[in-house]
Amino acid sequence: MVVGHTVAAFDAELTALHAAIDRMAELVERQLAEALDALTTANVDKATQVISGDAAIDQLEMEIEAMSIRLLALRQPMAKDLRDIVAALKIASNLERMGDFAGSVAKRAVTLAGLPTLPPVGSLSWMGRTVLSMVGDMRRAYAEQDAALATVIRDRDGEVDAAYTSLFREFLTYMMETPAQITGCTHLLFAAKSIERIGDHATNVAENILYLVKGHLPLEERHKEDLSSFAVALPPVLES
Amino acid sequence: MVVGHTVAAFDAELTALHAAIDRMAELVERQLAEALDALTTANVDKATQVISGDAAIDQLEMEIEAMSIRLLALRQPMAKDLRDIVAALKIASNLERMGDFAGSVAKRAVTLAGLPTLPPVGSLSWMGRTVLSMVGDMRRAYAEQDAALATVIRDRDGEVDAAYTSLFREFLTYMMETPAQITGCTHLLFAAKSIERIGDHATNVAENILYLVKGHLPLEERHKEDLSSFAVALPPVLES
Repeated sequence: MVVGHTVAAFDAELTALHAAIDRMAELVERQLAEALDALTTANVDKATQVISGDAAIDQLEMEIEAMSIRLLALRQPMAKDLRDIVAALKIASNLERMGDFAGSVAKRAVTLAGLPTLPPVGSLSWMGRTVLSMVGDMRRAYAEQDAALATVIRDRDGEVDAAYTSLFREFLTYMMETPAQITGCTHLLFAAKSIERIGDHATNVAENILYLVKGHLPLEERHKEDLSSFAVALPPVLES
Repeated sequence: MVVGHTVAAFDAELTALHAAIDRMAELVERQLAEALDALTTANVDKATQVISGDAAIDQLEMEIEAMSIRLLALRQPMAKDLRDIVAALKIASNLERMGDFAGSVAKRAVTLAGLPTLPPVGSLSWMGRTVLSMVGDMRRAYAEQDAALATVIRDRDGEVDAAYTSLFREFLTYMMETPAQITGCTHLLFAAKSIERIGDHATNVAENILYLVKGHLPLEERHKEDLSSFAVALPPVLES
């Protein structure tokens, strides 16, 4: 029964690895929700908690890495099990980045709360809610190894990119009309970029789930609709 | 001689893996140099080449991943060899992100070249040169498994963060004084952020090299001096 024992131990370790990934994803989801809330309500205390909360996510990434390397070394997994562990390593790395970006949003929230007037944070809320729901779906797709849901996440990333591009243009125009808001809008643009990047990483995780479930990456290139790098708003004097 | 033969084949595969990482790092270094050049000289052709050149880096990441997974599955490596392969996976992932950011800089270069007047791109050049030399050192540290050089890279990241923070403040002030430059300066700020992120990823690679050589991560937290999230420039009317 030594083999049976070993297999059971390996399964238990894989289950623990999955649980650690889910815990990490749960923390990321909560950090993002709190960071968005801190940003839109100018809540410095909440933002400060998010900033200090990132350490727990970094710690989990290190634990997942150690678990994965241990499993690779001791269990010498093949095929699906090997993909499972490689996917865990990659997903943990993406989650760690997502946590960093939630922290970045919180840092901008602190700065914005200290400004004499708040720029229009409302424009961000659709984008924030969409990315937050992508992160929730990502958690569910991983837990249920749901390739169909992973594909849906991948498709929604294009919407977020398009929203970010339009927001970028809107804010440029707004800064020209209201120079007193330049500092606030610039920080808000970077917060928006961080949220957009969280969506990108959720999409990477969705692709890792597809690889894990199907054994290969999707063949079609994913949509890239973040055209903000090319967005231009000319000052009124030049347009006339 | 079956064991000797297997060891020799494994060594050859590891050497091929190292060579692939170095090729990827070389491409990233070249892409960054060209992107910086395109940005400071407003050269759209060069920027366009950088944008399309990113596909080769993505392709190499996939090859390195396939090689690593193959080595993990077939060779069941232990200790240093296992760290070597895990480090390769992580370094390739960082290099892929660095390539993306070089592409982002090139996209901003295209947009800036199309504006009626260029914002002061010169302020970026010190930062760009510093990050470029970090990337060169990173390549050398990996090739020579040089832990001392990897530590130097890690320490230089703080300088880049500090330069970016000061540049962020400078550009906010500049935009207030020159609203016609808001679009240009905003794109330049994002280009600066991409360059700063390339420095972060070079530092991650340096940490991967330390892990690979020493078997553990450095104990001291690395310096984080990017305080740009908190930078505020108030419009003249509010300061008076």
